[in-house]
Amino acid sequence: MVLKLHGLSVSISTARVVACLHEKSVDFELVPVDLFACENKQPEFLAKNPFGKVPVLEDDDITLFESRAITAYVAEKFKETGHDLIRHENFNEAALVKVWTEVESQQYNPAIDPIIFEFFAKPVVGMEPDQTVMDASLEKLKKVLDVYETRLSNNKFLAGDFYSLADLHHFPGTFYFMKTPWSSLVHDRPHVKAW
Amino acid sequence: MVLKLHGLSVSISTARVVACLHEKSVDFELVPVDLFACENKQPEFLAKNPFGKVPVLEDDDITLFESRAITAYVAEKFKETGHDLIRHENFNEAALVKVWTEVESQQYNPAIDPIIFEFFAKPVVGMEPDQTVMDASLEKLKKVLDVYETRLSNNKFLAGDFYSLADLHHFPGTFYFMKTPWSSLVHDRPHVKAW
Repeated sequence: MVLKLHGLSVSISTARVVACLHEKSVDFELVPVDLFACENKQPEFLAKNPFGKVPVLEDDDITLFESRAITAYVAEKFKETGHDLIRHENFNEAALVKVWTEVESQQYNPAIDPIIFEFFAKPVVGMEPDQTVMDASLEKLKKVLDVYETRLSNNKFLAGDFYSLADLHHFPGTFYFMKTPWSSLVHDRPHVKAW
Repeated sequence: MVLKLHGLSVSISTARVVACLHEKSVDFELVPVDLFACENKQPEFLAKNPFGKVPVLEDDDITLFESRAITAYVAEKFKETGHDLIRHENFNEAALVKVWTEVESQQYNPAIDPIIFEFFAKPVVGMEPDQTVMDASLEKLKKVLDVYETRLSNNKFLAGDFYSLADLHHFPGTFYFMKTPWSSLVHDRPHVKAW
């Protein structure tokens, strides 16, 4: 059975999984979930993910949610196909991939996510972005990017001199961030920009 | 070389790793980091974790940070010792451990962490807890616990009928939460309480 990904291509979490599936050249069917019609809060969807969030992956007899758990599953299941995103043949490198994957999850995403939510999502539903929230998040983001700049001046990628899931997880959020008025935070840091 | 864990036993993130090391009966040395004296912002500590956060694990030639990356490393390295926290012999069960580990990280922790910070940490430094933040977090937490209650009425543990890293990651935050005036959120949900 071809993998079924329930989600929305504009959703950062869905895009994180799509990027991983493309990277591994895995065929999948994207099943659109109409978030504006609250399809994700209907019983049929809640049976797949009780938290009512996209994406959800169905693969034969298993149903998975939480984008980073899904990418870990895909990267492990297809570890012999395409680029090795988890460095499965080197225990220490694999551990560093986990460290920097957690950095995205615990440091980068909590800084960038509120900016994208305020700047892009709120206006869609007719709400005003909260400047105080954006300012605080931009301050956090600067500190995270300062660490990245140093890290990336010594390593080609976050976990080391190899491209991994840790880098890939950053794509969708960064894609949107670069369309905000604050993209200079990236442009002003040459190693982050090159990365 | 015995593992060196740099941290503070009252820190939730440090306690998450300590719980995992105990579960796997791994010897380690706890190296105290004086957060009140900002020892974690000194160059020596920043060389181990550029984000200046505890815990940090040193094991021979590798230095790791981010508590959930450390527990994943410990659970994998010592997978043949003690309880198997990652279900390494069953691919689908291992995937479900990852899903519910992410649920702790993305749903449970973001709800419980602000409550603990406001209620316990702020008064220590003479600040008033922000009731608005606590109220919003308690509402979030209720919804997460409702999902857990349903999940745990059908499964002994979060990822299935087996105890795993997903459950273990909840220990330290829940320990503190049960000392707040809102522990009834757990007591009122019989399956969560039993879990």
